[in-house]
Amino acid sequence: MLERIKKLSGWLTEQEAEVAFLTSTDNVFYLSGFLSDPHERLLGVAIFQDAEPFLICPSMEKESAKNAGWSYEVIGYSDTDNPWDLVENAITSRVSTVHTAAIEKEHMNVERYEKLIEMFHQANFISAEEKLRQLRLKKDPHELEKIREACALADYAIEVGVAEIAEGKTEMDVLGAIEYALKKKGVLEMSFSTMVLTGKNAASPHGTPGTTKIQKGDLVLFDLGVVVDGYCSDITRTVAYHDINDEQEKIYQTVLNAQLAAIRTIHPGVACSEVDLAARNLISSAGYGEYFPHRLGHGLGISVHEYPSLTETNPLILEEGAVFTVEPGIYVPGVAGVRIEDDLVVTKSGIEILTKYPKELQIIR
Amino acid sequence: MLERIKKLSGWLTEQEAEVAFLTSTDNVFYLSGFLSDPHERLLGVAIFQDAEPFLICPSMEKESAKNAGWSYEVIGYSDTDNPWDLVENAITSRVSTVHTAAIEKEHMNVERYEKLIEMFHQANFISAEEKLRQLRLKKDPHELEKIREACALADYAIEVGVAEIAEGKTEMDVLGAIEYALKKKGVLEMSFSTMVLTGKNAASPHGTPGTTKIQKGDLVLFDLGVVVDGYCSDITRTVAYHDINDEQEKIYQTVLNAQLAAIRTIHPGVACSEVDLAARNLISSAGYGEYFPHRLGHGLGISVHEYPSLTETNPLILEEGAVFTVEPGIYVPGVAGVRIEDDLVVTKSGIEILTKYPKELQIIR
Repeated sequence: MLERIKKLSGWLTEQEAEVAFLTSTDNVFYLSGFLSDPHERLLGVAIFQDAEPFLICPSMEKESAKNAGWSYEVIGYSDTDNPWDLVENAITSRVSTVHTAAIEKEHMNVERYEKLIEMFHQANFISAEEKLRQLRLKKDPHELEKIREACALADYAIEVGVAEIAEGKTEMDVLGAIEYALKKKGVLEMSFSTMVLTGKNAASPHGTPGTTKIQKGDLVLFDLGVVVDGYCSDITRTVAYHDINDEQEKIYQTVLNAQLAAIRTIHPGVACSEVDLAARNLISSAGYGEYFPHRLGHGLGISVHEYPSLTETNPLILEEGAVFTVEPGIYVPGVAGVRIEDDLVVTKSGIEILTKYPKELQIIR
Repeated sequence: MLERIKKLSGWLTEQEAEVAFLTSTDNVFYLSGFLSDPHERLLGVAIFQDAEPFLICPSMEKESAKNAGWSYEVIGYSDTDNPWDLVENAITSRVSTVHTAAIEKEHMNVERYEKLIEMFHQANFISAEEKLRQLRLKKDPHELEKIREACALADYAIEVGVAEIAEGKTEMDVLGAIEYALKKKGVLEMSFSTMVLTGKNAASPHGTPGTTKIQKGDLVLFDLGVVVDGYCSDITRTVAYHDINDEQEKIYQTVLNAQLAAIRTIHPGVACSEVDLAARNLISSAGYGEYFPHRLGHGLGISVHEYPSLTETNPLILEEGAVFTVEPGIYVPGVAGVRIEDDLVVTKSGIEILTKYPKELQIIR
C-alpha cells in the first residue's frame, strides 16, 4: 500500500494539489487494503503530498480497517457525529490551505461535492480517476495471487456447469447448480450476474438466463466470474449439446482461432489495438465481421471492468502486470452464439493464461 | 405513471423549477415504467411544469422503453453521439431558460453535474429526492401486487431453507439450496445478499454466512428477499435446531412478543416512532434493551431500503399504501441472535401482513 500511496502523493505534487479525498469502495480498498461497503455512510481515504494520510469510517469499522493493514490514522465517527467536520479538521490540520483537491468525479455524488465546496470554497476540484486507473493497471504479486484463485474457481464453475447439462434442463437450473457448488466452496460473491444461455438465447447479444430448456443441437454459453478477497475473474466457454450443424461448428472454430490469434500477439509492449485487430481481422475474413459487435476484452482486478480496454483503436501499450480478458464472440441470430474468454496477465517475457478450462469444441452427450 | 408525472410537475411549479432531470435506475423506473441499468451510459427522464416529458437512453433500448409503457418522446443515442447535446436540445426546445433545475444530489456524480452546470450556468440546482421519496411512499395497486408476489417467494425461500437444516450442513450449504430453489422458480435477483447464520454467528450483529456448521442447540437465522419485476421483499425468520436452552427461548419469545406488539399499533395515522417504541419498550422491559441496536424497520418497494424509517424518533405518520418491514431483534453475543421480520402494508382501515411464513418458535429435529 505504501508504494501506491507514494505514487499518488507524487502525482499530487505534479498537479499542485494539496489533497486527494477518495471515497469509492474500490479505490479505498486499493490504497488502504480495507474492503468495506458502508452503503450511504462515509468511508474515505485522504492522501497528501507530504503529510500523513488518514482514513475515515464508521466507529464500529475502525478495528477492521486497522486489521486490514492501514497503519496511519483512522478516524471513526458515530451516528451522532458529523463526519464532514472530522474530515475538515483532519485536512486543515495537515495543510494550511486547499487550492486544488483531487476527487473521484465519476463516483462522488453532488451532495458530498457540495460539502467539499463549502469546506474549501476557493478550491479547484480535479479528477483523480484517470491516475488511479493507471496505477491499478499494473498488478502486484499479491493481487495476481488473488486473481489466480478467482480464476481457478471460475474454471471449476465451468466444470460444474458443463457436467450439469442435460436435455430439458433450463438455463436457470444449470445456473443455480453452478452457484450452489461455488457457495459450498465458500464463494460469497460473483463478479457479475452469472449467464447460462442456450440455443437461440445464446445467439442474441442481449440474452438473459431464464426458463429456456436445453435441446439437442444447442450451443450452451457460460459467462461468469468469482470474487476472491476483492479480486475478480471472468470466463466464458461455449459447448455443444449433441451434434451441431456445420455452420455452428464453423462459427465455433472461427471464434477459437480468433482468440488464439489474439493471444499470440500479446507480449510486453504490444498495443491494445493490435491484439483486438488480430481477432477482429480473422473473424472478418471468415465473413462474420458484423456479428462481432463488441471490444475484444477489458482489464480486470478489483473491478470486473477496468483498464485497459482492448478495442481496435486503443493505442495503449500493454506492459508487465496488466491483467485483462480476451473474449471474441460471434452471434448470428437463429444460428449460433459463441464466445470464448480467458483472463491473462502480461509477464516480463510474455503471458500467463490464468483461466485454464479447455477450449477445444466439446460435444456433450 | 401519468399521475406520478403530474405530481412531480406540480411540485416543480411550487419550487419555480423549470425542469427535473432524473437519472437513477429507481426513479426512472418509478416515473416511466422502464426498468434498465445502463451502467455508465446515460439513462434519464426529464419532467417539466407543462411541457411534454422525455426519456433518453441508448438507441438499442428505445423499443424496450416504449414497450414498458412510456408514451412520450424517447431520445435514443448511439455510442458516437454526445447524449448531453441531445439532452440540452430537448430541454431548451421545451423551456426558454432554466433558472432552477431539480436533480438527484445523492445519486448524480460530479462529472454529470458539471455537464449540467456547463449547460445551464446560471441555474440553481435543487434536490428532487425528498419529493420522490414522499411520492414513492404510497404504493398503488400494481406495486402492491408485485410486492405480494415477491413476499410469497420470500415465504417459499424460508420454507426451503428450514427444510434444508441438518446437523453438519454449513450456512453456505443452506443458502445455496435456497437460491437454487428460487432460480428454478425463475427468480433472477435477490433484494440483497441472502443471510443464513447459525449459532454464535447469528448472535453477532455483523455475522456473514460462511462455513460454520449447524449444530444441535443452534438458533438458525434467515434474512432474505426477492425481486419481482423491480419490487422487493424482505423477510427474517429464526428457528431452533433441536432443543434450545431457557434463555434462548426467552429471547425468542421476547422478540416475537415485541414484533406482535409493534404490529398491533399500526393503523392509518400512527407515527413511525409509536410503532418502534411498542417493540423497543417491550424488549427493554424484558432486560434486553441494549441488545436491540437497530431501528424497528424500513420502507420497501423499488428499493429494499426506502421511506419510511421506523425509528423511535421519527414523527412521520403512516398512511394507507405505506409498505414497510417490522423487524425487532435481540443479539446477545455467545447466547442467541433472534430477529423476526415481516413486510406489511397500511390499508384503509388497518394493515395487511404480506409475508406469511409462521412465526411461532419452530424446533427442527
